[in-house]
Amino acid sequence: MIVEILNVGSEILIGDILNTNVRYLSLKLSEIGLDVLWHSSVGDNLKRLQKAITIALERSDIVVITGGLGPTTDDITKEAVSLVVEKELIEDLKIKKKLEERFKTLNKTITKNNYKQCLIVKDAKIFENKVGTAPAMIVEHNSKIIILLPGPPIEMKKIFEEQIILFLKQFVKGCIFSKNIYIYGLSESVVDEKICNFLKMKNPTVGIYDELGQVRLRVTAKCDNLKYCKEKVDEIVEQIKIKLEPYVYGVDIKNMQNALVNILKLKKKTLAIAESCTGGLISSKIVDIPGCSEILKMGVVCYCNESKISLVKVSAASLKKHGAVSSCVAKEMAFGVRIIANADIGISTTGLAGPTKTNSNKPVGLVYVGISTKKETKAYKLFIPNKEGERNKIRNLAAIFAMNKTRETVLLDN
Amino acid sequence: MIVEILNVGSEILIGDILNTNVRYLSLKLSEIGLDVLWHSSVGDNLKRLQKAITIALERSDIVVITGGLGPTTDDITKEAVSLVVEKELIEDLKIKKKLEERFKTLNKTITKNNYKQCLIVKDAKIFENKVGTAPAMIVEHNSKIIILLPGPPIEMKKIFEEQIILFLKQFVKGCIFSKNIYIYGLSESVVDEKICNFLKMKNPTVGIYDELGQVRLRVTAKCDNLKYCKEKVDEIVEQIKIKLEPYVYGVDIKNMQNALVNILKLKKKTLAIAESCTGGLISSKIVDIPGCSEILKMGVVCYCNESKISLVKVSAASLKKHGAVSSCVAKEMAFGVRIIANADIGISTTGLAGPTKTNSNKPVGLVYVGISTKKETKAYKLFIPNKEGERNKIRNLAAIFAMNKTRETVLLDN
Repeated sequence: MIVEILNVGSEILIGDILNTNVRYLSLKLSEIGLDVLWHSSVGDNLKRLQKAITIALERSDIVVITGGLGPTTDDITKEAVSLVVEKELIEDLKIKKKLEERFKTLNKTITKNNYKQCLIVKDAKIFENKVGTAPAMIVEHNSKIIILLPGPPIEMKKIFEEQIILFLKQFVKGCIFSKNIYIYGLSESVVDEKICNFLKMKNPTVGIYDELGQVRLRVTAKCDNLKYCKEKVDEIVEQIKIKLEPYVYGVDIKNMQNALVNILKLKKKTLAIAESCTGGLISSKIVDIPGCSEILKMGVVCYCNESKISLVKVSAASLKKHGAVSSCVAKEMAFGVRIIANADIGISTTGLAGPTKTNSNKPVGLVYVGISTKKETKAYKLFIPNKEGERNKIRNLAAIFAMNKTRETVLLDN
Repeated sequence: MIVEILNVGSEILIGDILNTNVRYLSLKLSEIGLDVLWHSSVGDNLKRLQKAITIALERSDIVVITGGLGPTTDDITKEAVSLVVEKELIEDLKIKKKLEERFKTLNKTITKNNYKQCLIVKDAKIFENKVGTAPAMIVEHNSKIIILLPGPPIEMKKIFEEQIILFLKQFVKGCIFSKNIYIYGLSESVVDEKICNFLKMKNPTVGIYDELGQVRLRVTAKCDNLKYCKEKVDEIVEQIKIKLEPYVYGVDIKNMQNALVNILKLKKKTLAIAESCTGGLISSKIVDIPGCSEILKMGVVCYCNESKISLVKVSAASLKKHGAVSSCVAKEMAFGVRIIANADIGISTTGLAGPTKTNSNKPVGLVYVGISTKKETKAYKLFIPNKEGERNKIRNLAAIFAMNKTRETVLLDN
């Protein structure tokens, strides 16, 4: 089955938003074994959208359309599909009822244009939108399938993952199974070189993805039965792990914060965090994991020298002698926050995230991470080569580095 | 002049890479006043690529193609263009010489497939690639223009910015100018209804974009001269601001944290933050703004009750009587952090981000925000309707809500 993804929205065409929907859908559709051969995007213009749908139906079996289902005047996807497949738009009473209930719960008045969202293409199969108001729908036309999905990524992903993917799986023969391997501390090209033989395999396939601060490998097998798929994937995952030890920090774990929280829970250790340049980013990443209260005792953001002294008892003398961005201050911060929080591990960050240089002769991108346990307190230096305006990148890479060092420390600690 | 952007590469179709080229080009082309009306992507397949180029030439004046110019067998863009425009591929001696020199400098042996990069479509205009080996080219065909750019973003951007954009500017009459209006506290559909007359205008145009926790309007004018463009945009911006007062929180300001930091700097006020459910997210958003040390005195993440007591002096009695997620605790947190940090304003968040319900009868999505000034300490209740797994969304919306309330408080404070 050939699939085309068609994204609707003038904001895509003028570059106002980065089209992340198309990548998400491409990945998910390919993962279940469908062949995505075309992508296209078109603005909120009825004639051009009709044209794009017509072209897509000529060359593909399944057309997945995102966007243009909302209540505003420039939301025209349903109208365009209705014209192309020559089926009228009708009001769906069930959707209408839900919409009215939703607005009632929110204690908001329903505006007239919202009723546009109750219109469906006649005979379409409807899929409830649990996080928004515009439902998804599937329209069949001359043995081709048109899938209409809302544009906001949160809504689109939820409907796709929970409902549409099940519908699409009927068109795929056999099974597909994947696992993701997460690597920290090696660049994409080094990983590529170390496992080049794996990257050439046909089944399972291994895909390599460079993600900010980490490399991800996806191992995917297609077979007749799921058990065999899983066995094949597990075998390759084990082989790759051996090749890349000790840089593999987890399998199917998504990110470093999950790896860190898992090991802390396993070892029953608690954490306290003092952040300067990362400014709450590490705390925030950890709090994003449900149940983190078990391990996170305290977080402090001490961005200025004053708060470094008052919050985590860094000595004014150290700040004066070595500067805030120094191994010494990083250690004092990590030690201080551990003691104050009465935690097992204290971690800290202090660095220069830019964009402008400071008066000191230290370069933008220089970061020190402190880690303090009951046994010892250490500092690690990190330098992130950077261009102007990469403040956010520096802060994120520093946060991942700090979390990884903490993970390693906990892992080795007995 | 109608423009189509056509991206070539199977890695795009299977979702292996996020297509950032298309957004970059869309933005740049729109900025100089060209109308990008179509995007499409196709894999490394000669027939499908020919088809895509043919469709693009039918509906557009300028076709910008990225990717498929490299040395490997799956790089077929030049071949496809040559077939569509019926002009042969010829070897360019100048490119050949440069390529050989480049490999000599790098002290590498030139492989046979690299010579593929010396082939050009006959009569094409060549643009040197200063950071890679594949040059860009422009092919004219029946008064339409095809622009071939290398796929790697660094190479593509450099050639486009330094050379192609100058070539394209000859086709643009007049200027283009935009401003963005940021709105908090109204849904997209309400904004749409309030300003529907503006949304129908032709020049300036007004686009509406729903972004997590805010609505953005972009006002864009195209005119003969920049001064007139700016005047027209400013006029509409002022009219919309009046229509949407007091919900407009800024123009060309990007996000709530910028608005908040600006007003704090203007009023010379300092901030201290105590975060429970947002867990460092507000601090992190503020620290992402360069120069925030002027206004941010302290941030604390007190996720568990113990740290609420020890860090910001919440009373154990209040926690017991009202629970951590309560108006009373929010106020004590905001007050406590303001006093400890000796700041002008203290803010706090405490809420239930889920995904699982707690023992209390309070619902997931309930958040209290505390704001304490030298005059008074208040709490604000927020309920974010949510589904399971929306922890991140709840935390983000709570952070924006808290920053907006703080902004309003500072604004009204004399």
